[in-house]
Amino acid sequence: MAEHTHNFPVEEDYGLNVSLVEAVLETVEQGSQPQLLTLLEPLHEADIADILEQISPSERISLLTLWDRDLDGGVLSELEEGVRDEVMRDLPDEVLAEAVRDLETDDVVYLVEDLEEPQQEKLLEKLDVVDRIAVEQALSYEEDSAGRLMQREVVVAPQHWLVGDIIDYMRGAEYLPESFYDVIVVDPMMHPVGEVRLSKIMGAARDVAIADMMEKDFRTIPADQDIEHVAYAFNQYHMVSAPVVDREGRLVGVITIDDAMDVLEDEVEEDMNRLAGLGDEDLTDKVWQITKARFPWLAVNLATSILASIVIAQFTGVIEAIVALAVLLPIVASMGGNAATQTLTVAVRAIATRDLTPSNAMRIVVRETLVGLANGVVFAGIIGIVGLIWFGDPMLGVVLGLAMVANLLVAGMAGILVPITLDKLGADPALASGAFVTAVTDIVGFFAFLGLAAWMML
Amino acid sequence: MAEHTHNFPVEEDYGLNVSLVEAVLETVEQGSQPQLLTLLEPLHEADIADILEQISPSERISLLTLWDRDLDGGVLSELEEGVRDEVMRDLPDEVLAEAVRDLETDDVVYLVEDLEEPQQEKLLEKLDVVDRIAVEQALSYEEDSAGRLMQREVVVAPQHWLVGDIIDYMRGAEYLPESFYDVIVVDPMMHPVGEVRLSKIMGAARDVAIADMMEKDFRTIPADQDIEHVAYAFNQYHMVSAPVVDREGRLVGVITIDDAMDVLEDEVEEDMNRLAGLGDEDLTDKVWQITKARFPWLAVNLATSILASIVIAQFTGVIEAIVALAVLLPIVASMGGNAATQTLTVAVRAIATRDLTPSNAMRIVVRETLVGLANGVVFAGIIGIVGLIWFGDPMLGVVLGLAMVANLLVAGMAGILVPITLDKLGADPALASGAFVTAVTDIVGFFAFLGLAAWMML
Repeated sequence: MAEHTHNFPVEEDYGLNVSLVEAVLETVEQGSQPQLLTLLEPLHEADIADILEQISPSERISLLTLWDRDLDGGVLSELEEGVRDEVMRDLPDEVLAEAVRDLETDDVVYLVEDLEEPQQEKLLEKLDVVDRIAVEQALSYEEDSAGRLMQREVVVAPQHWLVGDIIDYMRGAEYLPESFYDVIVVDPMMHPVGEVRLSKIMGAARDVAIADMMEKDFRTIPADQDIEHVAYAFNQYHMVSAPVVDREGRLVGVITIDDAMDVLEDEVEEDMNRLAGLGDEDLTDKVWQITKARFPWLAVNLATSILASIVIAQFTGVIEAIVALAVLLPIVASMGGNAATQTLTVAVRAIATRDLTPSNAMRIVVRETLVGLANGVVFAGIIGIVGLIWFGDPMLGVVLGLAMVANLLVAGMAGILVPITLDKLGADPALASGAFVTAVTDIVGFFAFLGLAAWMML
Repeated sequence: MAEHTHNFPVEEDYGLNVSLVEAVLETVEQGSQPQLLTLLEPLHEADIADILEQISPSERISLLTLWDRDLDGGVLSELEEGVRDEVMRDLPDEVLAEAVRDLETDDVVYLVEDLEEPQQEKLLEKLDVVDRIAVEQALSYEEDSAGRLMQREVVVAPQHWLVGDIIDYMRGAEYLPESFYDVIVVDPMMHPVGEVRLSKIMGAARDVAIADMMEKDFRTIPADQDIEHVAYAFNQYHMVSAPVVDREGRLVGVITIDDAMDVLEDEVEEDMNRLAGLGDEDLTDKVWQITKARFPWLAVNLATSILASIVIAQFTGVIEAIVALAVLLPIVASMGGNAATQTLTVAVRAIATRDLTPSNAMRIVVRETLVGLANGVVFAGIIGIVGLIWFGDPMLGVVLGLAMVANLLVAGMAGILVPITLDKLGADPALASGAFVTAVTDIVGFFAFLGLAAWMML
């Protein structure tokens, strides 16, 4: 019934219901397996995974122990890496093997690819031979390649078939992939020559030739292509599924849009994290794991901020004479850092979405520089007046204003040139995180501010 | 032929080929329409839109003028907002009407929703009556609601049908939506009661009853739901399409995963931009537009950094006595700001992905505080030694180290508590951008550092 669909035990925004989580924990404490199953039954695997992520590690073990053999393998592939590894380490081999056996091979690949060799081996042994070979073949492709992401179960049709042949074939097939949206038309060498949407097949008469209705203008994905490019292609070209081919152009699998959607989200998130100076971390990681993960970024930041301090150290004379300069230093640093972060973020996203290319790079660099200059002039006026009123020294206002222009101008330039340069060098432009670019603005800002003060006010 | 697919004139990573853009510009300059059509013909609409975005405004006008009546409406819906508005303003009414006429109604909605009333009216008049009504109905839903995003063309089947009935209906249908993946099964009141994947229909015999094979456990989307929630649901539950219902639960349309994917990308990007202090801006916006868009964020930052300066102003006495303090100020500010940004980014993403909920909020707050403390202690040691070696004053090292602990501890706490609080208040947690949280760390950091120095060193 349709009403049923409104009763999913999640909030209107699809967040987990707090009382549901509490009920699950209570049931686990009481140790009632039937009640646990009743609670979990209506939930989507992804929501159960969320519950496992949100409770504490000890509660997690209790829940899994109680759940025991009824554990749904689909839940495992929904878990974030940290919890997944922990759970797969803790689960008894038998429970794990049973849970994994029902999964599609691409989900199995996703689950086992990060396991240590011995555990991976042990798990693969439990699979059916056919599945096992499929998983091992997928693992032979490099990490983050289309070959790893694709599903190997593909519905193909030879060129000479009629619509009726496809329908009969599908009706007779013992096994069909759980979700597919196109039939891939292949030549005798298994080269894809066309694609037909299921909706088109269904709308056509049985005697129509596939070759006459297939889409010949379609994109194939090389199996060794980086999944970041794959996700971009799906998003850019509104693809729903795409055949994956080996180096000889032969069909080896298919990637569907839901997989691409996951990758796309991961990629944007990765850029966001790198810009913020974050490495790989999960919300469920422990304090020491996170402390360790964030340490290197903070260390780089410490090194670059010491450089900025060295600049200030050159001007202790003028600071001793005019202590107001020390008071105003953080304004210079903060404005430059903020303006640089704005430009940097725009640049990193534009490079990721292929909107910033050699064709328009020059125009964008000029524009960001002019924006920096324009905001520099505006804020020079404002901050100049603030300096004047606060300290009653017109010259201090002038110096502060001039430093602001220099600082925001450099912020705009550094914010765009650093990521473009990193990209040209083959590095990830998002690595031009705060630390580097704000170091540039700090150094220039302090030098301009204190240098001008020394020159004009002493 | 499959080989054809490798000849798309874009780079391997699907970025535009620079020489292609140059060839297009050259052709436009020469004014040869046939050659322009030859160049554009093999390109996807999205790639043509990218070309239009990457060339200058005057080149854009020349290209569109030359393209004239052959302009493909699909290109318009691929353009980013700024360029789209400009292009739609510049195009002759006749060209525009013709371009829009071939689009699906959801694309037309997307195109016209931001137009000024008179231009919107003028364009809608050119549409067929049926399309026009569909567009106007869609526009009656609020912006950013499921009703705006959905397509109204849905394939439905009554409960009592057999597979054969659906196939016959589709074969006889004059019009079928371009892409659909499920047939929605409805009761006589148009309430969705089930969903059947096309792939399942195709694998079933003609005499199977739809009611026996349909999926009853499916999600319906309320037409007034925020598209951010819709995108989340598609991603969380791996949905491919979902029926949209009105308040009475009647089917009004369907949303497909490709639309949800666009929204998902937009939402992550919006978080990223807000964290960086960016409002709405496009890469094609002009200098003054961008300057204006970034101004308010910089102004807020100016205000908060003045607060930090006021803290320093309370300690001019100790700075005059020990000028090394002024030299070291940026290190304190920078480390606190960076640590806070790390925590803040994690928190904003976790809230957006519903991973941070009331169920685990307390645990995450404690964890972030402990991470701040742990990194604070580690960096206190490092920076204490740096201070000692640089200025040869052990007490300065101690003061700097203690300030670092306080600063990173507060950074961790502020970084997690501010976004959680904003979210609870119904505000966007990403608005806790650098400016606010780093103001807290600056103020606490400066106060701890200079306060301790005044107390312990004077």
